[in-house]
Amino acid sequence: MEIIGGVTAPKGFLAGAVHCGIRKNTTKKDLSVILSKVPCTASAVYTQNKIFGAPIQITKNNLENGKAQIMICNSGNANTCNADGIYVAQKMCDLTAKKFNLDTTDVIIASTGVIGQPLDINKIANGILEIEAIENGSSLANQGIMTTDLIEKECAIEFYIGDKICKIGSIAKGSGMINPNMATMLGFLTTDINITSEMLDKALKISIDTTYNMVSVDGDTSTNDMVSILANGLAENDIIDKENEYFDIFVSNLTYINDKMAKKIAKDGEGATKLIIVNINGAKTAIDAKNLAKSVVASSLVKTAIFGNDANWGRILCALGYAEADFDVTKVGVSFSSKFGEIPVCKDGCGIDFCEDMAEKVLKQDEISINVSLCDGNFNGKAYGCDLTYDYVKINGDYRT
Amino acid sequence: MEIIGGVTAPKGFLAGAVHCGIRKNTTKKDLSVILSKVPCTASAVYTQNKIFGAPIQITKNNLENGKAQIMICNSGNANTCNADGIYVAQKMCDLTAKKFNLDTTDVIIASTGVIGQPLDINKIANGILEIEAIENGSSLANQGIMTTDLIEKECAIEFYIGDKICKIGSIAKGSGMINPNMATMLGFLTTDINITSEMLDKALKISIDTTYNMVSVDGDTSTNDMVSILANGLAENDIIDKENEYFDIFVSNLTYINDKMAKKIAKDGEGATKLIIVNINGAKTAIDAKNLAKSVVASSLVKTAIFGNDANWGRILCALGYAEADFDVTKVGVSFSSKFGEIPVCKDGCGIDFCEDMAEKVLKQDEISINVSLCDGNFNGKAYGCDLTYDYVKINGDYRT
Repeated sequence: MEIIGGVTAPKGFLAGAVHCGIRKNTTKKDLSVILSKVPCTASAVYTQNKIFGAPIQITKNNLENGKAQIMICNSGNANTCNADGIYVAQKMCDLTAKKFNLDTTDVIIASTGVIGQPLDINKIANGILEIEAIENGSSLANQGIMTTDLIEKECAIEFYIGDKICKIGSIAKGSGMINPNMATMLGFLTTDINITSEMLDKALKISIDTTYNMVSVDGDTSTNDMVSILANGLAENDIIDKENEYFDIFVSNLTYINDKMAKKIAKDGEGATKLIIVNINGAKTAIDAKNLAKSVVASSLVKTAIFGNDANWGRILCALGYAEADFDVTKVGVSFSSKFGEIPVCKDGCGIDFCEDMAEKVLKQDEISINVSLCDGNFNGKAYGCDLTYDYVKINGDYRT
Repeated sequence: MEIIGGVTAPKGFLAGAVHCGIRKNTTKKDLSVILSKVPCTASAVYTQNKIFGAPIQITKNNLENGKAQIMICNSGNANTCNADGIYVAQKMCDLTAKKFNLDTTDVIIASTGVIGQPLDINKIANGILEIEAIENGSSLANQGIMTTDLIEKECAIEFYIGDKICKIGSIAKGSGMINPNMATMLGFLTTDINITSEMLDKALKISIDTTYNMVSVDGDTSTNDMVSILANGLAENDIIDKENEYFDIFVSNLTYINDKMAKKIAKDGEGATKLIIVNINGAKTAIDAKNLAKSVVASSLVKTAIFGNDANWGRILCALGYAEADFDVTKVGVSFSSKFGEIPVCKDGCGIDFCEDMAEKVLKQDEISINVSLCDGNFNGKAYGCDLTYDYVKINGDYRT
């Protein structure tokens, strides 16, 4: 069940943010923390980009023991591809640990923003001195991690493990440099579930695969992004230490919240006016289904057509055709759907007559599903993306200034 | 040496075009032919998209014997993913052959435009009745194959094989649905060189690999595109039937003209205001060099930054990092150059101080080189692309209407 409260919904979590001066706009928070009152098992998944930020390296080091207690993240500067990034990231951990009386390795650190600029540790240091972690601070922390995001992305759910109420909360930021292959944005998860570090790793990886990894905004896999989770055990369920029914419940709920967040990220993609959901049905293999879904959702021509309310399904077939996947072209069916209705446009690989007026009305909504039926097997796949608009070009034509 | 005349520059070639009614605008030519006065050896390379147009299938069949004498191409309709495409494409060949007293299999056929619409054979039939192939008709034929292209793309060169003057001419069209992996547009080549079909195939494939295959406009590999060549032997050089010095001269000149055309296509990409040339130097392998060049040139974030005259080199490192290639991040250097000058922005994988004012001036030109030095090996690669602009979105948001 969805509840309010974001990352501070689960028991024992606090959060907060300040403006420390990395962003010029003094009303924009640019440094956030999420703190657990007690030690946590912790896990994270990271960008696959061979060029990755200093915070990624430091977080990997810190999570080697499977434990952490605080997340800290600045926006406005990625602390990547600069001369002293590792030093600054390490210092940022040290100062955070000192302030909150933790070990340095208890810190999960993240940075998002421009690549290649030095990050001023003095601003961060002052920010850390000022920052407070408070009850109900999720929205504040959310504001501090946003870059070109237009809306805050937050979700929390509760569910039972045995007779114990457990909660998961999350905040995340997009919204450019986003492409399937993990590593697509920053997602922060908190939970009060009691689970071993090994099973937490496993659950996070499973849930990411069909959610965050299936989002594409612009095909660019970022250098910095990660999804991390802290689990503090305060729900007091019997510890989950193997793949049993309780593990499955946790994975199912973690996947639910990550799916929600992935959709929010796609919908708030840079310049986006519409969420695009690509559903592939009847593929020969699960990998085929995924590759086909990703290929369609990432196609610039499909994205611009959806922006223009143009039922140009030929571009969907084109994107299917260049995906790494095996399927029978003569069996492909395509429809568009939205809350306005569903309109089939292609059957057996060929165009069929359809009402252009109806199609335009279906496509004028803000959540569009592209439904591809392959009639070629039993596997399904889903990917999230957004339309490609004038504003994407505007935002990215002059990002640094 | 470059000469004038396009596809009608080589001896014995005629060309022409008419408006046959596929395009609504009656002043826009939409059906073109290129005819050799005598039989030719012929070859073509085709899209890698699993979904390909009926004309591709028919041309493959017709070229099985390595011979052809005429090329016919309509614009405005791709004759792809419709119910009777193969019938229409075959009929188009039959009518063309009849009109010009050739065998049906002597015809190379192509179509470009919207996918999934029926192509009216009656319009084509009337067009074929009307069309004339004339001396100096290259520009006419060029107009007939254009879709969203803004400028005609034509080139011709002459060179010696022994004591014989030989010529190669070409026309081509872009300008969306263009991505490395062959198959990216339509290129038509004519030559009066005397060469066997087997060596012509080999020469075309070699020359495509570093030219047409290294162009990206939007990452979408089209269903219909191909590069084809007719060689009529009228230059009377000793026949090229093996890999000898003369073969090498031919390949070198064919690569020269295909490189010119690839650049023209990239520069006239949909909505483009700038040509982007990515040079990779010092890669470990040739494949690495290619993959890195393609990755940078295809990045939406790099493309929008160049549009905005923004020296945001971090996005270049990001695109290098997610390419399939092995390199040492700590050795990467990046510079931007144009006719205004060259400005280094990254050394040893880190940002270096540079004059933003100078960078903006370098980037404000209409041909921008992004130079990446890896210091990691001896292989180089080059890719052509263009910036991503408001007009790309505009053109593709409403292409069908």
